[in-house]
Amino acid sequence: MKFDPVRWDKGTLTIIDQTQLPTRLDYITLDTLDAVWDAIKQLKVRGAPAIGVCAAFGVLVGIQQRQPATLQAARHAVTVIADHLATTRPTAVNLFWALERMRTVSVSGSDDDAPTRYVEALEQEARALFEEDQALGLAIGKAGASLIPEGAGVLTHCNAGGLATSGHGTALSVMFQAQKAGRRFRVYADETRPLLQGARLTTWELQQAGIDVTLICDNMAAQVMREGKIDLVIVGADRVAANGDAANKIGTYGVAVLAKAHNIPFYVAIPRSTLDFSLPDGSSIPIEERAAEEITHGFGLQTAPDGVAVYNPAFDVTPAELITGIITESGILTPPFTESLNPSPPEQVAS
Amino acid sequence: MKFDPVRWDKGTLTIIDQTQLPTRLDYITLDTLDAVWDAIKQLKVRGAPAIGVCAAFGVLVGIQQRQPATLQAARHAVTVIADHLATTRPTAVNLFWALERMRTVSVSGSDDDAPTRYVEALEQEARALFEEDQALGLAIGKAGASLIPEGAGVLTHCNAGGLATSGHGTALSVMFQAQKAGRRFRVYADETRPLLQGARLTTWELQQAGIDVTLICDNMAAQVMREGKIDLVIVGADRVAANGDAANKIGTYGVAVLAKAHNIPFYVAIPRSTLDFSLPDGSSIPIEERAAEEITHGFGLQTAPDGVAVYNPAFDVTPAELITGIITESGILTPPFTESLNPSPPEQVAS
Repeated sequence: MKFDPVRWDKGTLTIIDQTQLPTRLDYITLDTLDAVWDAIKQLKVRGAPAIGVCAAFGVLVGIQQRQPATLQAARHAVTVIADHLATTRPTAVNLFWALERMRTVSVSGSDDDAPTRYVEALEQEARALFEEDQALGLAIGKAGASLIPEGAGVLTHCNAGGLATSGHGTALSVMFQAQKAGRRFRVYADETRPLLQGARLTTWELQQAGIDVTLICDNMAAQVMREGKIDLVIVGADRVAANGDAANKIGTYGVAVLAKAHNIPFYVAIPRSTLDFSLPDGSSIPIEERAAEEITHGFGLQTAPDGVAVYNPAFDVTPAELITGIITESGILTPPFTESLNPSPPEQVAS
Repeated sequence: MKFDPVRWDKGTLTIIDQTQLPTRLDYITLDTLDAVWDAIKQLKVRGAPAIGVCAAFGVLVGIQQRQPATLQAARHAVTVIADHLATTRPTAVNLFWALERMRTVSVSGSDDDAPTRYVEALEQEARALFEEDQALGLAIGKAGASLIPEGAGVLTHCNAGGLATSGHGTALSVMFQAQKAGRRFRVYADETRPLLQGARLTTWELQQAGIDVTLICDNMAAQVMREGKIDLVIVGADRVAANGDAANKIGTYGVAVLAKAHNIPFYVAIPRSTLDFSLPDGSSIPIEERAAEEITHGFGLQTAPDGVAVYNPAFDVTPAELITGIITESGILTPPFTESLNPSPPEQVAS
């Protein structure tokens, strides 16, 4: 890949400011906890896996800032920092999962010891998370690549690419691997209002990779399906419940309904860390609502009358019955997902 | 209504420049044929009925500019002007229908006579078109108003309001008349990418009328339906074929599929002049494709990478089987539309 959405180098956390893409590729340094919190909240870094990785390194940024003198103070600081970072975005489970991994890092020692070994262990855990995420993206891509035949038309929504993870992506990783296997195909990218992650990020990533991509508005998806241009849909997800219900960027549910109506298979690509077995189904996944101005003043220009009421849910839940398969690092899982998504997956990684 | 989208006063054609709404209510004078052509092409005036009325007056603007000296020259000028205005936008049938009415205006006299009476007859025809359009909008509203019960949630797409016609509108006229009958209800307005007619125009008109309106992005329609917020959908159309297939703003077809999937009735509101009996079904309705920049540089800001491929169909066709009823000045027509849309409708206007 030609870019690193999240980078940790000699104790410095750097990210691509994704709000500036595609016209500017700006790397920014996050050297305070506030800067990390703001970057996640403002979607400078976004995508469920990338948020998790950034938050894990964000714990280290917070520790560097606080300079706790003792092991006890450092443990307390991790709790406080993780609690704070957890308030950024409610829907993606990877955020909570990554912070939980940082919380459970432990080293032996008494409360008054210097925290040196503990901080090293925290850094090791964040790095492990980062590396696992890269490996998982690759495994997901390899698991799903055979779904895209030569000459296919693929629709995707929002951005589940290398920018949404720390490397290969999820839905886009499947496309990258299909390309690597020598197949040519065309991707239709929904622009994905209000924040246009499809227009700004997905088209950019696919262009960089030399994959044939066509941008459409969200409301054109039905038409391209009707014209026979789409053979399959692949999207990412921010949280998947135990029965396979999948929360993803607003509009995904509509795409799934349209795919069903046109007999087009609909796939969700995720690392297993996106699974939330604590939820039996999608009805209790918290759905973030965002500010009206994202819709009414989207790009510096007012496009709706003053004072108009706005409904701006950032996610929706696609029910499992609309999902043909879930592409994970363990292979392509098929319905019934309550069985195939079982909490103790086989160890092997499908190729 | 508090505004006139098209106005003809003492030989001067004035329109609201709808590209400036909702932040500015600018009336502009169209005093050359080029200005009329440009206003229709650039969607300064838009909506199938309003385009027809504007084009009819546009013929007069062209005649004023050319000042033909003889009846023969004036007849020739009308043909040339109408041919030119017909090249603005291909999908809406009202444009061609209105121009055809102007072409068929005739007065007796020899070729060398002064064209005074002919020009008067042309003006009379354009005025008649304008007045009929206003009356039709009111009749459509009255015909459909009973479909909206107290407390209902109504979804609409694009703008089929007073701005799209010369007064009451079509889909919005139904809402205005339901309100006039004393019922309160909530409208969800799709913003309607790429040109945001829903965000800019529909919310503005409904706000002006004191109707409760909530703006959503197009990709949120499925979610508000799933949340049980929508009891019916009402949209306009730009051309309806003999079997009821309805061409309307891109995204309408997707809304119709979603409505079907959620068991929500889907209505199309049109004047009968939108019917095109020359087409047995929607497959041969020409679909205008517009410039990529409407999507990639929509808000004055670049939101997609340089050189990305774009597909930008401006309309789609909703097949008759997804349409619960067609609201016309003759009442609410129900399937099978090949029968109910017969070319010789009963004379009475439903109330």
